Amino acid sequence: MTKFDEATQAIRVDEGVYDVCLDPGYSIGGPLNGGYLMAVLLRAAVDASPHEHPVSTTTQFLRSPRPGPARVVVEQTKAGRTAAFARARLIQDDVPQLESLITTATLKDVEPIYAEESAVEMPAMEECVQLPDPKPESGMTLNAQMDMRFDPPTIGWLQGRPTGRPEARAYFRMAEPQDPDPYVLALAVDALPPVVFSAGQRGWAPTVDLTWHLRALPSPGWLTLLGSGRLVADGWFDEEVEVRDSAGRLVAQSRQLARVGRG
Amino acid sequence: MTKFDEATQAIRVDEGVYDVCLDPGYSIGGPLNGGYLMAVLLRAAVDASPHEHPVSTTTQFLRSPRPGPARVVVEQTKAGRTAAFARARLIQDDVPQLESLITTATLKDVEPIYAEESAVEMPAMEECVQLPDPKPESGMTLNAQMDMRFDPPTIGWLQGRPTGRPEARAYFRMAEPQDPDPYVLALAVDALPPVVFSAGQRGWAPTVDLTWHLRALPSPGWLTLLGSGRLVADGWFDEEVEVRDSAGRLVAQSRQLARVGRG
Repeated sequence: MTKFDEATQAIRVDEGVYDVCLDPGYSIGGPLNGGYLMAVLLRAAVDASPHEHPVSTTTQFLRSPRPGPARVVVEQTKAGRTAAFARARLIQDDVPQLESLITTATLKDVEPIYAEESAVEMPAMEECVQLPDPKPESGMTLNAQMDMRFDPPTIGWLQGRPTGRPEARAYFRMAEPQDPDPYVLALAVDALPPVVFSAGQRGWAPTVDLTWHLRALPSPGWLTLLGSGRLVADGWFDEEVEVRDSAGRLVAQSRQLARVGRG
Repeated sequence: MTKFDEATQAIRVDEGVYDVCLDPGYSIGGPLNGGYLMAVLLRAAVDASPHEHPVSTTTQFLRSPRPGPARVVVEQTKAGRTAAFARARLIQDDVPQLESLITTATLKDVEPIYAEESAVEMPAMEECVQLPDPKPESGMTLNAQMDMRFDPPTIGWLQGRPTGRPEARAYFRMAEPQDPDPYVLALAVDALPPVVFSAGQRGWAPTVDLTWHLRALPSPGWLTLLGSGRLVADGWFDEEVEVRDSAGRLVAQSRQLARVGRG
């Protein structure tokens, strides 16, 4: 069991009720990373489902739970042969923190009828760069869990040279060796710096809600995260992430609605 | 009040409880159209919210409700100044039919910081074509509610000439004159024929879940619906619809996960 597997564990205490312990190692400077929290919810939802794969997950980020004990309550609304549907809620101190709808199914590894190539070309891994280590006082513990190599222009904002478009692209793997699985993908779809940084909009950019679809089980190796956005207006932006596995296959698609930072 | 406004009405009978009457005029040959059902849920959710605009809606299609009386139960989970969060459920005969998470906010009409142009060019309206009228015995009553003009190659499947790619594109307006609003957009994001038809996969293609984001309030006039998909595999496909208003602005973005028809 890896540290990530342990940090996302959900212990069944009753039908549809799970005890979890939110790990301080997934903090983005105070709040915990949304992808990590989704992975915790998914552990509980998959345990409660007759199916193995979370093919669709929508999460509303109502509040920011703090590290420590919390509870996940899963309500199975329909369990069919093709798909099962559930609502799942993360609760801390009796207050709902995250609200999810999760659809599970059993994916088989078959040849696709149609598969679109990625529209964006990534530079070779050796041309990509890592982010500088965050200052210890920043509380950014998440970075140490992941190994990411960025397409250089998409983190040009670090040197005051944003591309002027919402975008972020990187190779991704867990720092502790682990083959990617649906829980790692939940982390991956929310692992990039907000795409608006590259549009010149810095500052705290909280996710309001995020939907992601698991499209295939990833092959071992590096993932590629291709992040983009189409509209930044009125304090709102969309961030879409397409995740490809080491074989180039589309394994996850996400879109989140988030708020533009204030400074 | 238009026929559509009437058909989507939600009458408040108690806190968070709404009576609705599902209209047989939105049938796609037996089941009711998913976009129509989302519009009904949204009427109730917006009424229960301090905010006016459903900026994010995810719906799981558990079952197919039939025309006639039903009930919507809205549970407000957090009402903030920027956004309010709710769960909403459509119930018929005491059985949950649709399950939704709805985020509402108040959008202002301001100049965007960044707005991506549409990647796809539509032909002029006069080069576009209408679908043939459905046979009365098909039960396809939905078509009469909408006026759609299709980009011809994307309905080539009608003559046995699918393009080989999941796609569908059309101009859209309500048949009864009505300016587009968020409820019309809910209908619009699920109004195209399934994009897999164009990839050569015909037959009943049920939506499993659908997420859409309202990004701006549409200007009066025709909408443009740009539908596409990236992966058709293992009986699953994604359908993404980008909706532009008559001024070319991005007003809605959707992605649904659906099942490939069996012939």
